[in-house]
Amino acid sequence: MSLKEDLQHKIDFKTKPLGALGQLENLTLKIGLAQNTLTPKLKNPHLIVFAGDHGIAQEGVSAYPPEVTYQMILNFLNNGAAINIFCKQNNINLSIVDAGVNGDFDGNKNLIHHKIAKGTKSFSSDKAMSIEDLEQCFEYSKNLVNDIAKQGTNIIGFGEMGIGNTSSASMIVNALTDISLENCVGRGTGLDNEGVTKKLEILTKARDFHGNISDPKEVLQTFGGYEVAQITGAMLAAFEKNMLLMVDGFIASAAFLVAYKINPEIKNNAIFCHQSQEVGHRLLLDYFEEKALLDLDLRLGEGTGCALAYPLIEAAVNFLNDMASFESAGVSNK
Amino acid sequence: MSLKEDLQHKIDFKTKPLGALGQLENLTLKIGLAQNTLTPKLKNPHLIVFAGDHGIAQEGVSAYPPEVTYQMILNFLNNGAAINIFCKQNNINLSIVDAGVNGDFDGNKNLIHHKIAKGTKSFSSDKAMSIEDLEQCFEYSKNLVNDIAKQGTNIIGFGEMGIGNTSSASMIVNALTDISLENCVGRGTGLDNEGVTKKLEILTKARDFHGNISDPKEVLQTFGGYEVAQITGAMLAAFEKNMLLMVDGFIASAAFLVAYKINPEIKNNAIFCHQSQEVGHRLLLDYFEEKALLDLDLRLGEGTGCALAYPLIEAAVNFLNDMASFESAGVSNK
Repeated sequence: MSLKEDLQHKIDFKTKPLGALGQLENLTLKIGLAQNTLTPKLKNPHLIVFAGDHGIAQEGVSAYPPEVTYQMILNFLNNGAAINIFCKQNNINLSIVDAGVNGDFDGNKNLIHHKIAKGTKSFSSDKAMSIEDLEQCFEYSKNLVNDIAKQGTNIIGFGEMGIGNTSSASMIVNALTDISLENCVGRGTGLDNEGVTKKLEILTKARDFHGNISDPKEVLQTFGGYEVAQITGAMLAAFEKNMLLMVDGFIASAAFLVAYKINPEIKNNAIFCHQSQEVGHRLLLDYFEEKALLDLDLRLGEGTGCALAYPLIEAAVNFLNDMASFESAGVSNK
Repeated sequence: MSLKEDLQHKIDFKTKPLGALGQLENLTLKIGLAQNTLTPKLKNPHLIVFAGDHGIAQEGVSAYPPEVTYQMILNFLNNGAAINIFCKQNNINLSIVDAGVNGDFDGNKNLIHHKIAKGTKSFSSDKAMSIEDLEQCFEYSKNLVNDIAKQGTNIIGFGEMGIGNTSSASMIVNALTDISLENCVGRGTGLDNEGVTKKLEILTKARDFHGNISDPKEVLQTFGGYEVAQITGAMLAAFEKNMLLMVDGFIASAAFLVAYKINPEIKNNAIFCHQSQEVGHRLLLDYFEEKALLDLDLRLGEGTGCALAYPLIEAAVNFLNDMASFESAGVSNK
């Protein structure tokens, strides 16, 4: 039998009705196949939050002022944000990366300094970053993920913080799928109807300015934030190390989309953790033919969906390893 | 300000966009109100699995033979079932109760012996149990919950095992709500279409035999299993101790429905953990105007939805207690 058949057989003969653990069973199968084993293990889980500022945020696409990106980094470093609380609760290591925040952190030792510049250019009238900046993002991320791999980590999540980055994600998803810009543009962290209309107007103009772009790296260069680009790079590097990838909400999924367009095999290792409130995210998950583990109406980012879903991933591994089989328990099958 | 306003204010001024933790914020509010505090705590979580056999199961309403109830108890006691694995993972104490299983356990010390009889009568031609049996179920459960309360437990979940008990739950839900029997009858642990048609036929006949019953205790006496009745009793007793109640899937929710009809206030302490695949459960949650925390297509019972959702409940408490506020973190608000 193939490993897939062996895994399915092991799952099916656990003491439960066939398929009764629903989505957890699909997850178990995916993890077993990714790790190429009937006895998968999760080791030293790690979550990286990447932060960056966006030129487009100066044009009023967000409900919050851009300086919040900088302030929130300090909050992460002081263990005050939601992601700090949820990582601590579920024993997940947390790293914070300055990918391109508009502010100085004075060499703070708890921060990873991978700043490309103090925010991207506005994609309303320019490419967000140069091709050299993009390559630098990928190189930084590769080094970081390789360092984390040395700690034995085989499951990794990615979070983001960047005022304006739902705009960036919307442009990326629209450019690389057949999902309309209108369907990609949502409330972000809390726009009202008027704000959404204005955001759509600004983004439509930007799309018309750049015309059709379909090369994934060029899309990322044009619309990405530094944090988005570093997430894409980190996902590709983590997949090279055969880690499991925890994919958070709309922005992390947009970064994943670019990675997927570069290397479609990466989907074999991806665990979609949370269905965000953004309509574009639901459509993007449909595009991947995936259902997220959680649907809690979160719209926070930071990787919070990954941290909250992690115990479910543990459960998927634990039932496969530790539950009795019908045979070993002497329970009658159907 | 009222406690509700104080809690909402504390939630709203955490360093996150307004409402960005979605359903977790509603949960936090519910827990704070139930515990009457701005700093809620979860103490010594406990889950009780109640097992019982059903006379109706002899008539072919289930995909599995009735002896599986007995065999699964042994599996619980040997730590081989899904609920053992998930409780261990999330540090939840687990108790197993023989409420009325058709088999002998020879005084096994790890089992709580609250057997009423070796299975209920078939409700196709009789009331499932006598009124004295029902009162005994409630008394057993009250004593058990009071013992658990002495260990400091303030959050408790309820699981069930009983071949045939989706039939019992369907009859209860149909009798106490306006949800049609057709909508209440589902695949259980794995019936095919023919099996579902037969199940509906048997249950329709049983309903016609008993006529309209609307008193919650009489409904429980007529259609309940011993495990269902002991869950209802345990829920009422736990609410008297002001515990938080974790409500699992369709059968536990049917038991909760009876408790709710006896004391509607109990809903203030109830946390719906999992949306089961059974259609009737979705309609029952609509009836309670509640959305469950998880929707993983589980159809296992045993309290697995509670055990899997518990880390989310912890997260709801932790963010309220431990996240920084906009003021304390120096982050700009909208």
